[in-house]
Amino acid sequence: MTGTLTIAGLGPGSEALVTPEVSAALASATDILGYAPYVARVAPREGLTLHPSDNREELQRATDALRLASEGHHVVVVSSGDPGVFAMASAVFEALEASPQWRDLSIRVLPGVTAMLAAAARIGAPLGHDFCAINLSDNLKPWATIEKRLRLAAEADFTIAIYNPRSVSRADGFARALEILKDFGCSERLVIFARSISTPDETIETVILRDARPEMADMKTLVIVGNSATRRFGRWVYAPRHER
Amino acid sequence: MTGTLTIAGLGPGSEALVTPEVSAALASATDILGYAPYVARVAPREGLTLHPSDNREELQRATDALRLASEGHHVVVVSSGDPGVFAMASAVFEALEASPQWRDLSIRVLPGVTAMLAAAARIGAPLGHDFCAINLSDNLKPWATIEKRLRLAAEADFTIAIYNPRSVSRADGFARALEILKDFGCSERLVIFARSISTPDETIETVILRDARPEMADMKTLVIVGNSATRRFGRWVYAPRHER
Repeated sequence: MTGTLTIAGLGPGSEALVTPEVSAALASATDILGYAPYVARVAPREGLTLHPSDNREELQRATDALRLASEGHHVVVVSSGDPGVFAMASAVFEALEASPQWRDLSIRVLPGVTAMLAAAARIGAPLGHDFCAINLSDNLKPWATIEKRLRLAAEADFTIAIYNPRSVSRADGFARALEILKDFGCSERLVIFARSISTPDETIETVILRDARPEMADMKTLVIVGNSATRRFGRWVYAPRHER
Repeated sequence: MTGTLTIAGLGPGSEALVTPEVSAALASATDILGYAPYVARVAPREGLTLHPSDNREELQRATDALRLASEGHHVVVVSSGDPGVFAMASAVFEALEASPQWRDLSIRVLPGVTAMLAAAARIGAPLGHDFCAINLSDNLKPWATIEKRLRLAAEADFTIAIYNPRSVSRADGFARALEILKDFGCSERLVIFARSISTPDETIETVILRDARPEMADMKTLVIVGNSATRRFGRWVYAPRHER
């Protein structure tokens, strides 16, 4: 059993944000598995098999990857951003824990630039002070848990990075999240809508939460809600280092 | 005024984790500013001036960088990890806001792999579910704020990444943080001590919070406190995707 399994983060979109470690793993892979738009970022070449799949098939994809590696392939599972942040790494370990026969496989996780870091860099430094990251999808957890976390995050005065704010099948959650934050006294906070950062489709927009509308976000958007001290001047938004 | 200012993240230590974007910025720089151990990661070459400084001088360093850029230099301010996470980007924007004469400078922030992503990748996927990042240094904020955030983070059942857990001048804070989390019922949670990840000095250790001792951490350590569902098997630790 000399195969390997690598779970790699491709970063937010630009080739200039793919780490050399990930590029090397892709160059020596025999098989690439992942959600189709991410697999499409890997250039085809002889000796490389691409296995694109749908985005609701994480656990099956993880199991397929483990099986291929156990058969001697050099498998790379690709995620956008960082593979450990709301992405494929957890699914692979879930599949591995359920499959003791594969426990001795050679497995590595290669980190990447996750969406909130790319978005923050583009607008300034909104993550310069304590912050949290919340996945707004309720496919895998109760909506009540999300609401509770939003309230506690606002009470803690964390800057809040919201992943997967809105999709066609979950059109209402983000609107409710904005209402919760308004009810909690966050109406004057700055909200950054960062879409497809580092790609040709990149857009970024900052508004006061009171003026934020749900349709400003979709599944390609990363939303950052500033803390109570977050400042805007010119085209920049940043969280001051000091807090009184 | 044709100078430029770039605030760049060098990643956690390994060259294999420096993005191509950052490598290109370093290759075309005339001046590198930063905390001495980070500046030491940039190879000297003709035409490049290195400006190492002490780690309590962020605002002065930021002002120096802006001045050099305004004089036509191509300046790169380097941080370890990501420059926007408890690092130099906020200090630069603070200095810029205080110095309107430099507002039209060409400024870019280049993201990097921050310590918690590198640590998480090495041990599995402990950031696979909602999480927060707290800077435990009380140099710039009241300790009471840190305590409040730890309690609310535990109540929210966030995985908690703790930056700057402990230094010679702040020996007690991390011990108090562990006590607070114990009092909050987190004694059985998994705690990861990740030190100097991706460097030759790398160590990583996981214990139950009950068994965590303050001296397991220093300023080169990133601590991750798992959420209530975080699991360990073999050498891996991960946060399951599902939550009930």
